[in-house]
Amino acid sequence: MSSPIDPPGTDSANARFPEDSVGLVTPQRMVFDAPLELEGGKRLERYELVYETYGTLNHDRSNAILVCHALSGDHHAAGYHAPDDRKPGWWDVCIGPGKPFDTRKFFVVSLNNLGSCKGSTGPNSLNPETGVSFGPDFPIVTVGDWVNSQRRLGERLGIRQWAAIAGGSLGGMQVMQWAIHHSEAVRHALIIAATPKLSAQNIAFNEVARQAILSDPDFHDGRYEERGVIPRRGLMLARMLGHITYLSEDAMRERFGRELRAGRIQYGFDVEFQVESYLRHQGTSFVDRFDANTYLLMTKALDYFDPAQAFDGSLAEAFKASRSRFLVASFTSDWRFSSARSREIVNALMEVRKPVCYADIRSTQGHDDFLMPNPEYLAVLHAYMQRVAAELAA
Amino acid sequence: MSSPIDPPGTDSANARFPEDSVGLVTPQRMVFDAPLELEGGKRLERYELVYETYGTLNHDRSNAILVCHALSGDHHAAGYHAPDDRKPGWWDVCIGPGKPFDTRKFFVVSLNNLGSCKGSTGPNSLNPETGVSFGPDFPIVTVGDWVNSQRRLGERLGIRQWAAIAGGSLGGMQVMQWAIHHSEAVRHALIIAATPKLSAQNIAFNEVARQAILSDPDFHDGRYEERGVIPRRGLMLARMLGHITYLSEDAMRERFGRELRAGRIQYGFDVEFQVESYLRHQGTSFVDRFDANTYLLMTKALDYFDPAQAFDGSLAEAFKASRSRFLVASFTSDWRFSSARSREIVNALMEVRKPVCYADIRSTQGHDDFLMPNPEYLAVLHAYMQRVAAELAA
Repeated sequence: MSSPIDPPGTDSANARFPEDSVGLVTPQRMVFDAPLELEGGKRLERYELVYETYGTLNHDRSNAILVCHALSGDHHAAGYHAPDDRKPGWWDVCIGPGKPFDTRKFFVVSLNNLGSCKGSTGPNSLNPETGVSFGPDFPIVTVGDWVNSQRRLGERLGIRQWAAIAGGSLGGMQVMQWAIHHSEAVRHALIIAATPKLSAQNIAFNEVARQAILSDPDFHDGRYEERGVIPRRGLMLARMLGHITYLSEDAMRERFGRELRAGRIQYGFDVEFQVESYLRHQGTSFVDRFDANTYLLMTKALDYFDPAQAFDGSLAEAFKASRSRFLVASFTSDWRFSSARSREIVNALMEVRKPVCYADIRSTQGHDDFLMPNPEYLAVLHAYMQRVAAELAA
Repeated sequence: MSSPIDPPGTDSANARFPEDSVGLVTPQRMVFDAPLELEGGKRLERYELVYETYGTLNHDRSNAILVCHALSGDHHAAGYHAPDDRKPGWWDVCIGPGKPFDTRKFFVVSLNNLGSCKGSTGPNSLNPETGVSFGPDFPIVTVGDWVNSQRRLGERLGIRQWAAIAGGSLGGMQVMQWAIHHSEAVRHALIIAATPKLSAQNIAFNEVARQAILSDPDFHDGRYEERGVIPRRGLMLARMLGHITYLSEDAMRERFGRELRAGRIQYGFDVEFQVESYLRHQGTSFVDRFDANTYLLMTKALDYFDPAQAFDGSLAEAFKASRSRFLVASFTSDWRFSSARSREIVNALMEVRKPVCYADIRSTQGHDDFLMPNPEYLAVLHAYMQRVAAELAA
């Protein structure tokens, strides 16, 4: 295992990447041997987290930013794994030299969460008790469990306090959890395109996605790996459905409208409209890079998140003891977690007089906008993070 | 076959139904032996339509109202089939003595459309060419095909002109088709909770529902009946997804919120939240009363509907030659076919100076509101239909 504060791998191949890219990066792995007690009552005796870092940790370890990923995300937030990678990490628009999370100033840490299928301990990992993969026996993990595992990662990296913790969607929920329960370790909390809790409609969409997977005959109660199959149909349907909620209706109209793939109606059940082709492609390609048990776990973490619950349902009370400062950002075209949901967070913070900046960013793409190079969005992040950087210098 | 103008069956059992109910009704059946050419290029050599009638056709046959049903609807729009029926027909709030479609004044005809699984010729009917059920060989039918089949029904009932044709959702599309292509036979067109064409997002939802059915291993390319199975999982998922789009987010929140069925989180994949329980119930009960091939056909009819297409994309041009008068109604909480979509219809009608009343009805339930006893909705329909009735008397 490489030293946790090693800078990301760099070599001459970087020359072919854009100047504001962190270039080639190498995932790192950290092993945690102390058991982690989970909110659901079970515990993980031992776990590993895969993560990447970009930039350099400064001498007093005060310039670290933690990035939390969303439903299908992973640790690869910026840069490239190989010279011929066509796409950089998922938040590359925000991370790099001169970008909002400026790697000339900040040391950015991006991890893969527990339960994932991207390298950290999850359903595909070996269950030491049985000698085979956990599969469906991997315990349900919550946003709180993730934050606890992230805290240990921070401790091992020698980071007592993060300059900022940032995330969009389910990532934003992890930021909220940090700022509510461990605010001494979070100077700035950047909560983007998130919600204080899922609505009944949000849960309903998750439930249809789960039922698609659970009812797939190839699911085999989650033990599909032992059978050498994949619940392909269920996972495809779940992803297709997800994509509808990630895109705004306007964006779908602009991208696809009612355009017919063959130019005219075929009167059959093959692809007729371009939007069908797009969705099927999104669904089938997802199957090759994501695990069904992980998908189930992630949707459960979303459903359960409700930090106000322990405070008699008051989100303001939940934030009351927080010492963090906040940036909340939402997108006008997001109908999955609409601006109104972000305003609930802002209102709660204002009610207990917490320092909060709020930006409702004009957008057209929907929930996915938090991953996109929307200029207003990047400008807001940039301005906020410059202030954070100025504090470091002070 | 009973005479087409027989009043609905009545007997002493009616005494136990509400006073404003049409009481016990008996479906009727009409056989059409002349082939019907379909828009998709195929033809039906022979077909049957099941329908119900409520009220009495007047001497000059001028008081008839045609009711067109939506995706999963049928001919049973009002009254009861048996004394112990718990629920009346699907539009019972609108049809009956003293109700908007007042059966003391009007003769209401409600049919089951071709391709359905509720009695009219459809995938479950015997294919005379093969001696077994049509199944997936039943041709794709369009809104235009339905209207053509409905015209023949009207002719056989001796109705040259309908006092009104009314429908909600996919039913409203049939009304539009009538008013555009056969307006000489439609005095008043009541287009409720409809849209001039599906959006990319609407098509996307339909496509996920179709994929759920098509990818179910029990679908067997639509020949599941021969195998003695039902694509239960796929049809269940399709219906669960549909239900999310029929209900407003507010309605879901009010009905279910984040209420937990067991009172506390179970950390498992059984039902946790009440909304999950509701959706699963809707899904599983649908499987017992609906056919998968029919569901596929109905979603295709929705996707294809686009009456402006033949007029260079201009809905106004499509309506230009219409001699009908219009009532358009939408519901403020409907996000499936939002008020904005109804306003497209209204604007097109105004552009070509057609007489149109428009009501955007305050509502909370969403798309389903067109089936519900919303007082403002019923008052609008009532007022409009009283004017139609006054024309009859004049």
